[in-house]
Amino acid sequence: MSTGSRLDSFVARYAERTKSMTASEIRGLFAVASRPEVVSLAGGMPNLTALPMDVVSQIVADVINENGQVALQYGSGQGDPVLREQITEIMKLEGIDSHPDDVVVTTGSQQALDLVARIFLDPGDVVLAEAPSYVGALGTFQQYQARIVHVEMDDDGLIPERLREAIAHTRAQGGKIKFLYTIPNFHNPAGVSLSLERRQEVLRIARDADILIIEDNPYGLLGFNSEPTRAMRADDPDNVVYLGSFSKTFAPGLRVGWAAAPHAVREKLVLASESSILCPSNFAQMAISRYFATQPWQDQIKSFQGLYQERRDAMLETLEQHFPATATWTKPGGGFYVWVTLPEGIDTKAMLPRAITSRVAYVPGTAFFADGFGSWSMRLSYCYPSPERIREGVRRLAGVIEEEMELRATFGSAAIPLSERPQRILPPSELI
Amino acid sequence: MSTGSRLDSFVARYAERTKSMTASEIRGLFAVASRPEVVSLAGGMPNLTALPMDVVSQIVADVINENGQVALQYGSGQGDPVLREQITEIMKLEGIDSHPDDVVVTTGSQQALDLVARIFLDPGDVVLAEAPSYVGALGTFQQYQARIVHVEMDDDGLIPERLREAIAHTRAQGGKIKFLYTIPNFHNPAGVSLSLERRQEVLRIARDADILIIEDNPYGLLGFNSEPTRAMRADDPDNVVYLGSFSKTFAPGLRVGWAAAPHAVREKLVLASESSILCPSNFAQMAISRYFATQPWQDQIKSFQGLYQERRDAMLETLEQHFPATATWTKPGGGFYVWVTLPEGIDTKAMLPRAITSRVAYVPGTAFFADGFGSWSMRLSYCYPSPERIREGVRRLAGVIEEEMELRATFGSAAIPLSERPQRILPPSELI
Repeated sequence: MSTGSRLDSFVARYAERTKSMTASEIRGLFAVASRPEVVSLAGGMPNLTALPMDVVSQIVADVINENGQVALQYGSGQGDPVLREQITEIMKLEGIDSHPDDVVVTTGSQQALDLVARIFLDPGDVVLAEAPSYVGALGTFQQYQARIVHVEMDDDGLIPERLREAIAHTRAQGGKIKFLYTIPNFHNPAGVSLSLERRQEVLRIARDADILIIEDNPYGLLGFNSEPTRAMRADDPDNVVYLGSFSKTFAPGLRVGWAAAPHAVREKLVLASESSILCPSNFAQMAISRYFATQPWQDQIKSFQGLYQERRDAMLETLEQHFPATATWTKPGGGFYVWVTLPEGIDTKAMLPRAITSRVAYVPGTAFFADGFGSWSMRLSYCYPSPERIREGVRRLAGVIEEEMELRATFGSAAIPLSERPQRILPPSELI
Repeated sequence: MSTGSRLDSFVARYAERTKSMTASEIRGLFAVASRPEVVSLAGGMPNLTALPMDVVSQIVADVINENGQVALQYGSGQGDPVLREQITEIMKLEGIDSHPDDVVVTTGSQQALDLVARIFLDPGDVVLAEAPSYVGALGTFQQYQARIVHVEMDDDGLIPERLREAIAHTRAQGGKIKFLYTIPNFHNPAGVSLSLERRQEVLRIARDADILIIEDNPYGLLGFNSEPTRAMRADDPDNVVYLGSFSKTFAPGLRVGWAAAPHAVREKLVLASESSILCPSNFAQMAISRYFATQPWQDQIKSFQGLYQERRDAMLETLEQHFPATATWTKPGGGFYVWVTLPEGIDTKAMLPRAITSRVAYVPGTAFFADGFGSWSMRLSYCYPSPERIREGVRRLAGVIEEEMELRATFGSAAIPLSERPQRILPPSELI
């Protein structure tokens, strides 16, 4: 039998970067949280109930029937030219004027993140990222042994003045900043968006400081009752790499995303991608291409918007009704997430097992920081469960928090080691 | 417009590893070689003419109809448990007794290669690889800034005595060997297989020297008139990471491969994969799973074998009839490739444009070496074209070589800089 030993005889042979690859200690908890009796407000899985499965089924069958020899064969490392053309059309909705040649199709936008990290990051390089930031990006940057410097946000997103300070401070210390990683729309996990005015200022700051911007935008078309916001790449294509995804506007199971990048960067991304996976799936690309060519996809996105808006409303209403007055939270205008800040001293990571016992799950705030902050924050996602389940989940969570606050009032709070480096690698469903 | 400038303003900001990411200068030639009038003996695209497209079409439609909410959703980072179980059944054909928990599903086995490189290779580490070796593996190892040390082969594969010498020599020089990368069956590009006796010896050498083996086996089930050979992993599962692929036994367009690894390594591979792509495609995995569960896949593989055998026979016969007596070539018992060695002094890379002008393409030998060797060798693939086209291609190539030899006899050969480091990154179709 080859199940092997639990002792790792390879430990001396791993690469330096592998030392930081350790599973989060809360992974086991999320396995429990996937039980049906638990309301998971943790995962970022898109809600696919509104997708017309009969249509999708016909599309994938047609792709094989009509063009199976191409769909099932190896393809281009950069991606299918027809799909890349369609991607430029989609990006036009956000004001981006691009050429199919600027686009690299990837295995979900996570692979685009990985490729960007691969071509830019040497060990010790600095990445600027919002505080908090997408856990999957932080984990990838750390695998490339980069150092994350967080930049504070408020309800209008990244604070330009803090960005200036972070650049100056990092450089004064000799740090080599490779790029600013930002999620301007319906931020994961913060639930806020970067204001139009600030976008211009952030672009200017980055341009002046010669810092590339990675604009990660999986949720941009999922605004509630609003037109898509003009992308940062629309105004400075030579200094912005834009990451897009079909995971939230169509479905994640095909694993198709993209990067739109300045020409030279795009070339490197393609070479890095070929080395990493040879080429993205022709079949997946052709299925998506056919869907976008033949289906009313903008109406479909509208129906996704409605579905998520209803869930966001359910969450915000129930938070208002049941959460303690000392808690605060963001009010997302789109996307999947609400960021909750509890009274200082509540340790959301320590509280998680108790929450799961009470049949509700969330992601503790520390997961979204590279520096141990976020202890009394949490991310709540409203994308997947039904509105009723969301209400029930928030009520349960309010009960858990109340108990926690009573315990604190009685026994005082444990010291929270702010310098503790959180274990970062969550399971994919919670990573998103 | 954002087509950008051809000048690379990012050059000072790339990671060290990116400096080696340059497109091969022969990429442009392969674009020409894809014209229908050119017989391409260059690419390693599997021949899918024998696949029953109506069946595959029905399978993908059924997967969405019956289980679309799962197929189109995010999945497990390690891969679908049902498919992993089936993978253990497939590996049993090669004597491997494994548990589904040992298996990590990847985006083609190229991603498995990338993950192995990622978790093991620090800059300057040494990888042992056959001379020649798979160009896509060499490129990936070089992206992780490893140094390749080649080990000589003969008609029975890797020569154990040369392996011993390479280990001793590398270590005497202070080199840190991380693993031996080997393709024991129907080698790409060499077309030979490692004998059973040598497998035991190589396992013993690696075990004694505390060197992990990466056994890359995409072609193992594609032997002509032969039972599958016992895999190396079958005899030392704790020291062998096995890489498998559905690209050649089913189809590459779904991009599904796998690694079977010792437990600790498997854990790291999963974490690295999640960081790189979150998870492989549920849809692709479920389609393959359904195909293997419901279709006579072993019969299908037999029909692939017959198809490739016919093409190999066409190639070997025509080589015998038309190639110069001073040329030698391997006689593959399976797989896709013949490795041809021309009279010393013929530069196959320099000859390639002339070959393409004569409407035939191959991959020059230097692509398969990290050290500039291989100048008078070439890889010919017989997998994709029809037997008639293969015969025509080999005849055309024989004509080109004859002219080349006449030129050499008249003018002498140009000096070939053996130390030249070949540009390594070919387009995906030629990488395979």
